[in-house]
Amino acid sequence: MTFSVPITPLTPEAFAPFGDVIDHLAVSPIHINQGFAKRFNLQAKVYVVPEAGITQTSIFVADPRPVPIAIKLMERHPLGSQLFYPLQDKPWLVVVCSDPQDPQSYRAFEAHGQQGVNYARNVWHHPLLVRDSGDRFFIVDRGGPGHNLEEVWLDALIFVQWPR
Amino acid sequence: MTFSVPITPLTPEAFAPFGDVIDHLAVSPIHINQGFAKRFNLQAKVYVVPEAGITQTSIFVADPRPVPIAIKLMERHPLGSQLFYPLQDKPWLVVVCSDPQDPQSYRAFEAHGQQGVNYARNVWHHPLLVRDSGDRFFIVDRGGPGHNLEEVWLDALIFVQWPR
Repeated sequence: MTFSVPITPLTPEAFAPFGDVIDHLAVSPIHINQGFAKRFNLQAKVYVVPEAGITQTSIFVADPRPVPIAIKLMERHPLGSQLFYPLQDKPWLVVVCSDPQDPQSYRAFEAHGQQGVNYARNVWHHPLLVRDSGDRFFIVDRGGPGHNLEEVWLDALIFVQWPR
Repeated sequence: MTFSVPITPLTPEAFAPFGDVIDHLAVSPIHINQGFAKRFNLQAKVYVVPEAGITQTSIFVADPRPVPIAIKLMERHPLGSQLFYPLQDKPWLVVVCSDPQDPQSYRAFEAHGQQGVNYARNVWHHPLLVRDSGDRFFIVDRGGPGHNLEEVWLDALIFVQWPR
């Protein structure tokens, strides 16, 4: 038996159990730089465990998965949050769950190209799901010593039909 | 008497006194996500003073300045670093100095559209200089209580001819 995860739009309310939605279009800006710029403070709580952790940045360049997407692996980071922000104005897909072994707990959110997410510490999420080969993301997460990656491998019984 | 700051390309060596150049194209990637993504770890040392500081993220949306650009103001942040990464693949301009009152100490660097910078703590820099109205940047800097902005206003005797 297979389970298909429905896709819904990414909203702060729906995503709240999993972390922050990053969407500057939903924020009132502050005028800075003598009127030549607007600053939109994001709702991302960047979190790094205090012991021997640093905030690090990276860029991920990704390839799309075969459609439908078979959810074979979920991962989480016990030592800090992980923020993804797209570097092209193109939809991408966020898949999270509360229990990797429970298909009913999965959620799939389509983000638009000016929305990012910040996964809270210990939130199960699927690796990056992009539309096209070479799509780039800016990442803010936790670096330093210690084991900051947990993975659960699954039988391929959970699917997401994306792009639709 | 006026002083014109020459523009040079942004390179890690030239920018080293002021902070880190963020350029994933200069980094060897790590293959992650079961081969579906490459991770380029950036050379940015995100720094936040330990006392009551947090790492925060924001988006700046900027407008261009009149050409030639008159350097009227330099600023710096005593409590942490400040990282800028462009959200469009378009050149932008970085102006820094070691002493705002010394025109000879100014440097102007043209960054390409996949280069960011991370200004080190206390490095004097000009506010964001962009090519077109609405150009967006992703920012990682320091938030929290305390005074994290110093500004020096100048007579408009220092200019940069950009775009060239």
